[in-house]
Amino acid sequence: MSPEQLQGWSAQVLTRVESALDEWVPRSAPAGLGDAMRYGVLDGGKRLRALLVEAAAQAVGALETAAGREAALRAACAVELIHAYSLVHDDMPCMDNDVLRRGKPTVHVAFGEAQAMLAGDAMQALAFEVLTPDVGEGAGVPPAMQARLVRLLARASGQSGMAGGQAIDLASVGQALDEATLRDMHRRKTGALLRASVQMGAACAELGSDAPCWQALTDYGHTMGLAFQIVDDVLDATQPSGTLGKTAGKDADANKPTYVSLLGLDGARREADELLAQALAALSRSGLSADATGALAALAHRIVHRDH
Amino acid sequence: MSPEQLQGWSAQVLTRVESALDEWVPRSAPAGLGDAMRYGVLDGGKRLRALLVEAAAQAVGALETAAGREAALRAACAVELIHAYSLVHDDMPCMDNDVLRRGKPTVHVAFGEAQAMLAGDAMQALAFEVLTPDVGEGAGVPPAMQARLVRLLARASGQSGMAGGQAIDLASVGQALDEATLRDMHRRKTGALLRASVQMGAACAELGSDAPCWQALTDYGHTMGLAFQIVDDVLDATQPSGTLGKTAGKDADANKPTYVSLLGLDGARREADELLAQALAALSRSGLSADATGALAALAHRIVHRDH
Repeated sequence: MSPEQLQGWSAQVLTRVESALDEWVPRSAPAGLGDAMRYGVLDGGKRLRALLVEAAAQAVGALETAAGREAALRAACAVELIHAYSLVHDDMPCMDNDVLRRGKPTVHVAFGEAQAMLAGDAMQALAFEVLTPDVGEGAGVPPAMQARLVRLLARASGQSGMAGGQAIDLASVGQALDEATLRDMHRRKTGALLRASVQMGAACAELGSDAPCWQALTDYGHTMGLAFQIVDDVLDATQPSGTLGKTAGKDADANKPTYVSLLGLDGARREADELLAQALAALSRSGLSADATGALAALAHRIVHRDH
Repeated sequence: MSPEQLQGWSAQVLTRVESALDEWVPRSAPAGLGDAMRYGVLDGGKRLRALLVEAAAQAVGALETAAGREAALRAACAVELIHAYSLVHDDMPCMDNDVLRRGKPTVHVAFGEAQAMLAGDAMQALAFEVLTPDVGEGAGVPPAMQARLVRLLARASGQSGMAGGQAIDLASVGQALDEATLRDMHRRKTGALLRASVQMGAACAELGSDAPCWQALTDYGHTMGLAFQIVDDVLDATQPSGTLGKTAGKDADANKPTYVSLLGLDGARREADELLAQALAALSRSGLSADATGALAALAHRIVHRDH
């Protein structure tokens, strides 16, 4: 898949995802909560996690059935809800105290801290609600698939995944982290959810964890999770805030360790290229056709070579 | 079931629940996160929600199979995790700014605001993780039952349930709420999770939502949710902080509307007694035996006649 084809494919996927989020994130939630949730999650960012879900679902053939397509769309929206809630909470004054996100005031600036905390909490609950449609709501997403998607998402976002990584991050301010700890932090903080995105896409086909391609796709997701963070650190060190849509250089300013502070700019870039090669190798050994994994391969290139 | 029998039954249930939470809430979570989570959820409070899950599971015969017992225990722990996370977040400075909970410093006082927010977030994720054991972890809780339990819990805790009620609460400070709005707030804020506790217990038997007892148990749960909050307001107005283990009179001080400010002390007590009668009537029309629903009936009496 060429960069242009990826662009077209992404645009199609994102139209479905934005439209589903617009439907599922409620306007009607009481006392302004719905407005804060919608502000935090709608038209937000690159939707990389949603794209990984859909690309993985496509790779394993899940999109050939109505139930698989519905499951993938719900999984894509659920990971985006988790990601968005984590940003809302992460931006709050007691955490990173960030006032700018995707070029807009952060949720707590626009709606107040209490509403931002509640909106994040409700977005997390909504992610699990979206994954468990009742009979008649979900085009027959099988209950076993629902439970598996919840299992993957809950583990990736909780203490052993994203929240655990944030706790390490919190404790790391001003610390000289060694490379192993920095990798562990990012494996959890951003890596776990990116990896889970790929796994959730693969779980939209009825595919056992012992299927030959499951481990290969998991390896792809793990590798891309790491590469994503390294490139994030490189961009944070080299791009102005306007391009990023958020405050640049914050981690370095807060004396937080980054891959750039650890490996240097060139070292970090080399590492990202090496991880791209590993991710493509994982796709090759998945046993899936190059055509099937085309979107995953193109996304890997885009993750590593993006400029914002 | 006499008050003494309820005492013995509760003690047995709580031994299982505390032991399971001790196992499932991880000591090992990184950078102090596990300590904050354990502080927020272990040996905490009356465990009313866990007792409602187990009593409802017993009423429908779910505890007669190993899978049903495992499902009920997981459901009981999951609702307690959701309840505990909501208290951790609710106590934070941007919300109620409470420093005392169950006679101990609140989580943000003991661990800092950032860690408290993360611990609450991770507790919510853990609730859904506990409900979706992998093959080999969960004594064969059927995937369809897992998905249904997640569905009930996610809906009760999100924007249309608990989080939505908290948003109304937040917006209500200093407002003269009418009775309908006050009831709507509590139906969501505390009522939804109490009702879901009963439904989740009932869902531990493979019981359709069209089963005759499902609606009766749902009515019981709804009624008890309302009664619980009314009695809470009465106790808050009449008991010293030492008995409650939290700061008494806070809602009245913050000029928040309560059932007592709306109905008067006697009116609130009469309403609680009326709801008790309705809850017992719902059990009578459930079609379940008085023996099966004994724990639910005894819990209803205890909820209304408790003194802390």
